[in-house]
Amino acid sequence: MMITEHSTIIKAELPVGDVHAGMEVFYNPVMASNRNISILLLNSIENTQMNICDPLAGSGIRSLRFLKELNKDKIKQLYVNDMKENFKEVFNVGLKLNKLKPKNVSLFNQDANLFMQEHIGFDYIDIDPFGSPNPFLALAVARISRGGIIAVTATDTAALTGTYPKVTPRKYWAVSLKNYLMHEIGLRILIRKVQLQGIQFDKALVPILAYSKDHYFRVYFRNEKGKEKCDELIKQHQYFLYCNNCFNFKTSVYNKEKCSCGKEFVFAGPLWVGKLFDEKLLEKMVENNPFPEEQKFLELMLGEAKVNQVGFYDLHEIARKLKVDPPKMELALKKLKAVRTHFSTTGIKSREKQSSFCSKN
Amino acid sequence: MMITEHSTIIKAELPVGDVHAGMEVFYNPVMASNRNISILLLNSIENTQMNICDPLAGSGIRSLRFLKELNKDKIKQLYVNDMKENFKEVFNVGLKLNKLKPKNVSLFNQDANLFMQEHIGFDYIDIDPFGSPNPFLALAVARISRGGIIAVTATDTAALTGTYPKVTPRKYWAVSLKNYLMHEIGLRILIRKVQLQGIQFDKALVPILAYSKDHYFRVYFRNEKGKEKCDELIKQHQYFLYCNNCFNFKTSVYNKEKCSCGKEFVFAGPLWVGKLFDEKLLEKMVENNPFPEEQKFLELMLGEAKVNQVGFYDLHEIARKLKVDPPKMELALKKLKAVRTHFSTTGIKSREKQSSFCSKN
Repeated sequence: MMITEHSTIIKAELPVGDVHAGMEVFYNPVMASNRNISILLLNSIENTQMNICDPLAGSGIRSLRFLKELNKDKIKQLYVNDMKENFKEVFNVGLKLNKLKPKNVSLFNQDANLFMQEHIGFDYIDIDPFGSPNPFLALAVARISRGGIIAVTATDTAALTGTYPKVTPRKYWAVSLKNYLMHEIGLRILIRKVQLQGIQFDKALVPILAYSKDHYFRVYFRNEKGKEKCDELIKQHQYFLYCNNCFNFKTSVYNKEKCSCGKEFVFAGPLWVGKLFDEKLLEKMVENNPFPEEQKFLELMLGEAKVNQVGFYDLHEIARKLKVDPPKMELALKKLKAVRTHFSTTGIKSREKQSSFCSKN
Repeated sequence: MMITEHSTIIKAELPVGDVHAGMEVFYNPVMASNRNISILLLNSIENTQMNICDPLAGSGIRSLRFLKELNKDKIKQLYVNDMKENFKEVFNVGLKLNKLKPKNVSLFNQDANLFMQEHIGFDYIDIDPFGSPNPFLALAVARISRGGIIAVTATDTAALTGTYPKVTPRKYWAVSLKNYLMHEIGLRILIRKVQLQGIQFDKALVPILAYSKDHYFRVYFRNEKGKEKCDELIKQHQYFLYCNNCFNFKTSVYNKEKCSCGKEFVFAGPLWVGKLFDEKLLEKMVENNPFPEEQKFLELMLGEAKVNQVGFYDLHEIARKLKVDPPKMELALKKLKAVRTHFSTTGIKSREKQSSFCSKN
């Protein structure tokens, strides 16, 4: 069938049932937002004349949209790859359908890692696989240029959020947390895992935009080369300590500490305790956004960026524990000088201490 | 010049000054022991008909010796690669000099990672670089077969032993310990780092022989596939806690604990707290060893394998702190039911508690 996503039309099938890796070329409408934001982000950063790499192109929709919607000075060369047998055919049909005759597109039909191995370097690499990005991280990190951007999607959120607690240490080298904070904790575990791959080669992958949406995580990293910058990242790899008794939480280089209430904290991590957002970039994105359906979400993140806190409070969780009615969101935000968080509709980020927050007044 | 190493003669230069990565093809006599032990190990394991991969072949001496000294049923195909310009020429000269006309050797002259990426799988991969093995681990792990062996050399021991404390977290994702235990701690940090790369893909890399010698570390891993086996490895990734006050040490999943003497432990790691040796394999190696110069070292490790302890006591360190003369080694071994360790000529491994050991009686 014919499908239109913003500027671009493609011929593909809609998935029937759950999306999985063995499927034929298909179009995943849930990921339209993922692509929207990648276009907006690339149009909002200063990088131009980029060698852009789409190694797991699938239907090719992202690259086709890049050709249509990225500012003219953004693409030096677009490298589009997928290992599906008929990929070049499919992509060429896409070019025709959209009346595109670009001179700066190189098509490949290889294993994604072999494709990246055979090239020298890219200024933007989009790792957008089914499931875990793990198999592609080593090569993406090896091939990203100084100042370049790596974008990583993970759709295996269950592996990061503690649904199967043994999976997180295996796939993401950290301990997950199975409570209302699991999405933020999972995202931060993913960030550290990607960063470790870079740090060993003196590539400091600094998150400029990281979020949880629908059933996936998405992180954009800027590659800032240098040992000192890597040391700075390592300082921000810490444990997250959570008190099951009194909602208190904190970050620490230690994984065993006592809460002020006297109980032992449980720990998650190690994970990234630094910023999830480059606030200035988000401001630009909010300003320049051509996708109305993303506006609320972008504004939510921009608000969240004002309070740099790891973890948040959930009004409903706290009300349940205190056996009171949940406070009104607007009231709580005002009273606690707090901001909303995109991780939860009932969550707030606040620099106020937990003690003042948990009082019943 | 012509150089003979056991069975094999090669034409190469001896290094003048320190060995480093930029040098022309040369012969490093210090690594003869490394090669001896790899031959002995391969002849002592049950694996036969192996696809053997020597991706950083250098002068080719290891592969030439494999052809001469490995049991006849060991090699199915030998893949020898080096990216130095004249490598194939150099290796073919080696074959002629040693009157070898093997039908099961494939020569390559590529980047080591590209070479590994382009092949499907190997039963033995020997990562023997200058410096850190880091750049080659992802591909070696990706390409090792089920039941296969990865051998890893690290000559960047300073990066693992705490000479530059900031380097260890960057290159090996752990905290090093700068005291008499630094070689064991460094080796165990290296082991975990390699294992992490496998665990994310359900490959459990179990050390079968791991040692520190001259100025390098060497670890042989058997690749035992399976999630459960990976979970077992993860349980053995712990912290090493050391008391600067009373010589006490222990392993723990926590990085902050108090010693029984009341002081806070310092921590190193995370690191591998499991076995360094497959005792049965070492027994075989001691029995079958054709290299007299390695016999003592092998027997030392076999003795050490009897006590599975992380860390050891150093008689001289303790004597210095207690301001007494160091005890005689033989006496200490007997009294404490201890064994020697290859990590230090004045070190002993004992299951006896530190308290009894530190008494002046």
